[in-house]
Amino acid sequence: MTKGQLLYEGKAKKLYTTEEPNVLLVEYKDSATAFNGEKKEEIEGKGILNNRITSLIFEKLQAYGIASHFVKQLSDTQQLVKQVDIIPIEVVVRNIAAGSLAKRLGFEEGTPLRRPIVEFYYKDDELGDPLISTEHIDVLDLATPEEVTAIYDGALAVNKVLQPIFADVNVTLIDFKLEFGRDHDGNVLLADEISPDTCRLWDATTKQKLDKDVFRRDLGNLTEVYTIILSRLGGK
Amino acid sequence: MTKGQLLYEGKAKKLYTTEEPNVLLVEYKDSATAFNGEKKEEIEGKGILNNRITSLIFEKLQAYGIASHFVKQLSDTQQLVKQVDIIPIEVVVRNIAAGSLAKRLGFEEGTPLRRPIVEFYYKDDELGDPLISTEHIDVLDLATPEEVTAIYDGALAVNKVLQPIFADVNVTLIDFKLEFGRDHDGNVLLADEISPDTCRLWDATTKQKLDKDVFRRDLGNLTEVYTIILSRLGGK
Ligand SMILES: Nc1ncnc2c1ncn2[C@@H]1O[C@H](COP(=O)(O)OP(=O)(O)O)[C@@H](O)[C@H]1O
Ligand SMILES: Nc1ncnc2c1ncn2[C@@H]1O[C@H](COP(=O)(O)OP(=O)(O)O)[C@@H](O)[C@H]1O
Ligand SMILES: [Mg+2]
Ligand SMILES: [Mg+2]
Repeated sequence: MTKGQLLYEGKAKKLYTTEEPNVLLVEYKDSATAFNGEKKEEIEGKGILNNRITSLIFEKLQAYGIASHFVKQLSDTQQLVKQVDIIPIEVVVRNIAAGSLAKRLGFEEGTPLRRPIVEFYYKDDELGDPLISTEHIDVLDLATPEEVTAIYDGALAVNKVLQPIFADVNVTLIDFKLEFGRDHDGNVLLADEISPDTCRLWDATTKQKLDKDVFRRDLGNLTEVYTIILSRLGGK
Repeated sequence: MTKGQLLYEGKAKKLYTTEEPNVLLVEYKDSATAFNGEKKEEIEGKGILNNRITSLIFEKLQAYGIASHFVKQLSDTQQLVKQVDIIPIEVVVRNIAAGSLAKRLGFEEGTPLRRPIVEFYYKDDELGDPLISTEHIDVLDLATPEEVTAIYDGALAVNKVLQPIFADVNVTLIDFKLEFGRDHDGNVLLADEISPDTCRLWDATTKQKLDKDVFRRDLGNLTEVYTIILSRLGGK
């Protein structure tokens, strides 16, 4: 499988066509960004780590029956995925209050929520990814009610699989962001990445942050903590 | 009925006990505030206008079978209401995009929504009344799922009654904010006020703003436009 034409370059990944229709090559970049791109840095090795971690996690999800765009890891920084039409909703699942939830609603960071919650954000960099409700999704015409149900149920299903996988290696899954898309047949499919860029992961004992908050809040070395996550998940 | 002890002074109203248990006297003040109290002015006659308009609207709602805390207008600036335990959720119904919805989601102000939507905001001045979802309501323990359903259905029912009442007098009901509370028996009851302070009301022909946006955005004389609303609703 070879790299065709560059389709899209995002903040963390590049998407290329391949000779296979509806299959894309994703190349993970070394860029770290935060605060809607305001903070930005090149961090050598980040692309390799996120490509490996995402591949590992999508493989685990598939083993538990959760379909996704993931086809296979291709190289250190590259993977193959099914092309989807991304639904412009960032889907956040939260088990424990942290980040914007804690700040907006006055929870102390680290407070367990009485149950996992699913939040929707309108994926629009210009608007700053605002929080939206299912009714906003409807009037913005972002997804049908059936698609919203598939996304909602899918997000909680991913949480049900990932929480114990992380707990088993002494990591608490605080929250994470997912993206979904429509595949060639119009089915809703889990897409994008699942990595320490898109999850909050704390060491269960020491509460050390093992995710992008290390970069956002200048708390230490990003590749060091991402490497901890990769190796705890059994990756090399 | 006489004024007892001052129970609470808010930005727009004062609440007093009365000799009747579970009945409060509400006194409408002349204060106009916006942007979470940052902008503030005394406007003579505002209290009278909002007391009359709110009384008129709650009477109309009751005639259409919508129960509320409203007992009766007592004087120019005073009314009697049933005491409730206010549920700290500001419930916004929107028919047409304006204000924060337009800004947050990129709608042009004045764009009709394909259907009315209900939004919930956490009534907390310190947090700046953030938008919340039903799941936030649950984890914040603000209301039970049954109460949320009563609030949601109640808000849309108020919209169904008020939209034609305003349309009949050539006013478009763009959006409005409601508050609900629990009465002595634990029933969810519509409370607070419904006035040009809490509604967006545009002249249907000229699109002239006949509500608090006149004060928020320095668009003219507040008592003049509130008087237009009062007289169109048949008040003196
Ligand atoms: N299977 C897929 N098909 C098409 N687009 C995808 C797929 N998976 C992820 N994407 C999109 O790839 C783009 C590049 O990713 P990224 O660099 O993370 O972008 P962003 O800057 O928007 O976060 C994103 O817009 C993402 O939604
Ligand atoms: N029936 C009622 N019983 C008890 N409290 C009420 C009732 N109706 C309204 N309130 C509350 O009265 C307070 C005073 O109103 P207002 O001056 O508008 O306050 P605020 O500054 O919070 O907007 C508000 O907190 C409102 O929720
Ligand atoms: Mg991304
Ligand atoms: Mg008020």
